[in-house]
Amino acid sequence: MGVYGLILNHMVQSSATLDLLYAALADKSRRAMIARLARGPASVSELARPLKISLPAVVKHLGLLEESGIVVSKKVGRVRTCRINPKRLDVAQTWLARQRALWEARFDRMDAFLLEDGDIDE
Amino acid sequence: MGVYGLILNHMVQSSATLDLLYAALADKSRRAMIARLARGPASVSELARPLKISLPAVVKHLGLLEESGIVVSKKVGRVRTCRINPKRLDVAQTWLARQRALWEARFDRMDAFLLEDGDIDE
Repeated sequence: MGVYGLILNHMVQSSATLDLLYAALADKSRRAMIARLARGPASVSELARPLKISLPAVVKHLGLLEESGIVVSKKVGRVRTCRINPKRLDVAQTWLARQRALWEARFDRMDAFLLEDGDIDE
Repeated sequence: MGVYGLILNHMVQSSATLDLLYAALADKSRRAMIARLARGPASVSELARPLKISLPAVVKHLGLLEESGIVVSKKVGRVRTCRINPKRLDVAQTWLARQRALWEARFDRMDAFLLEDGDIDE
C-alpha cells in the first residue's frame, strides 16, 4: 500500500468526522460561538446577543456545531445551555499538527542530506 | 466593547481567510493532497494518482487549495508543480490553539477560585 496509501487509509476512517469539523469551523458566526463557549457555558440567547444574525440563524449554526461534536447542549426547563467539547477541537488541531510534523521531517531529511554531502561547514 | 467584542473584532479582520482555510480542509481529497504535499512538492498528475477521483476533479480541488493559500503552484513547460504553504496551515492551527488556551485559562481560574475558597486541601 505504501506510506501514502496508509495516510489515505487513515484519513478515510476519520474523514467524515474531519469533514464536519472543518466545515463547522468555516463560518465566522460559528467561530465566534466557539470562542465564546471556550470561556465557559452559555445559553442560546447569550450566544446570540453579540452576533449580528437572527436567533433562528444562531439555532441553525448551533445545529451544525452540535453535529460536528464541537458543541453539546442540554435543555433544562426553558433554557438550553451550550458547552464546548474541547476533545473535538483537538481532533481538528491534531490533523493540522500532523501535517506540520511531516513537513518538518522533510526539512530534517534535507538538512541531513546536505550535511552528508559536505555542503554545510560547521 | 468588552473582551467578547474584541474577539469578534479580531475575527472579522481575518474571517475571510479562516473561512477559506477551513472550507479547504473540509474535504478528504483535499486533505489527502495536503498530506502528500507536506512530504514534498508534486506535479498535478502525481497528486491525482492515488486519488479515486477524475483529473478535472483534482484540478478543481487544487483551485480551492490555491484560493485558500494552503497550496501554491507553478507551471514550467507542460508540468505544474504544487507546493504546500505551511504558514497558511499555521493560521488554521493557531486559531484552534487560541481556543484551547481560552479553555485552559478558564480551568486555571476555576482552580484558583476553589483554592481560595478552601475547598481543596494540600
